Amino acid sequence: MRQFVIIGHDAPVDGEFSLNGLPGEGRLDLLSRCVTAALLLSHDIREDVTVHLILGDEVTIRFEGSSLRGLHPDERSTAALIRTALEQREEAIGHIPVETSPGVFLQRFGIEETIEQLAGEGTVCQLREDGKPITTVDPPANPIFVLSDHQDFRTFETELLAEHCEYQLSLGPTVLHADHAITVANHWMDTDGYSDM
Amino acid sequence: MRQFVIIGHDAPVDGEFSLNGLPGEGRLDLLSRCVTAALLLSHDIREDVTVHLILGDEVTIRFEGSSLRGLHPDERSTAALIRTALEQREEAIGHIPVETSPGVFLQRFGIEETIEQLAGEGTVCQLREDGKPITTVDPPANPIFVLSDHQDFRTFETELLAEHCEYQLSLGPTVLHADHAITVANHWMDTDGYSDM
Repeated sequence: MRQFVIIGHDAPVDGEFSLNGLPGEGRLDLLSRCVTAALLLSHDIREDVTVHLILGDEVTIRFEGSSLRGLHPDERSTAALIRTALEQREEAIGHIPVETSPGVFLQRFGIEETIEQLAGEGTVCQLREDGKPITTVDPPANPIFVLSDHQDFRTFETELLAEHCEYQLSLGPTVLHADHAITVANHWMDTDGYSDM
Repeated sequence: MRQFVIIGHDAPVDGEFSLNGLPGEGRLDLLSRCVTAALLLSHDIREDVTVHLILGDEVTIRFEGSSLRGLHPDERSTAALIRTALEQREEAIGHIPVETSPGVFLQRFGIEETIEQLAGEGTVCQLREDGKPITTVDPPANPIFVLSDHQDFRTFETELLAEHCEYQLSLGPTVLHADHAITVANHWMDTDGYSDM
């Protein structure tokens, strides 16, 4: 099982946005690409991947590869799936999730609850430029990769992650967009032992 | 110098398309993501990368990282840059390129002329699922990666590439979208020797 936690600091927390200006909506273009980079293969879906998209530290949308329907590779339709989820946020009472479309679940909590809930499920790996090179580490069996959007992690996020994080990993010497970093992390997992095959 | 050649088989060859339905326009969503995956770093541009986007085997749009301006990470604005180029296609006479915006050049030819023009400039590497694993090969100094869109290479493309191609490379055991493949290829080049650093 692979999981990705993506922190969208300025993303909308309700469905009141247009699909024609996604970069201006807290970089929903980037966040949408993060979701598809984590979950989609060419003509297939990664059933062993779950994505937790944290919006404005208020709402977490979970995409479960094993049951997900209606996710397409383009930004606009992915943002529409996010909007559909946010339009139903009032139906999520307390911390109980609501399934807003097949395989998409919304919960009304942010980074702290998400990380604390996930910490027992695998190895929390914070992706950051000053981390340990992935080329020197063996991939964990059940990684939980945590990434920030186009902004740095906030201080309270870094402190929270310091409690739960087993690895601080760097993907390489160049600083990538979050969606490209997810593609590289998936590839790192995919190719573990590949040259020996 | 790194170059990427991306073949968009069904892409529009004129600027008569809407930015609201890019997947229906010969997968311009995917082709736009290919351009940004090749050229953009977080808050930076890859100045040593050139992208050749072949549309419908009629038009080739070249994006030169060293002089490019106005490329943003989202699909919509990248597709708008492509549309701006296509709107000026009548100004490209014969095989002479026209610079349609800073660092973006349009030429009225397709795959054959593009590959023949490039073959002397580096090592042509066809990316395909049944190729040799990249983990067993050292990155060439001046790679020219050739990728197809969401469709397989056509027979004439495979024959043409067989003449010029030094490597047929596979990125891993999973079949990726073309834009994700570009991210992985860039990462392969970026991290050459990274663990020794």
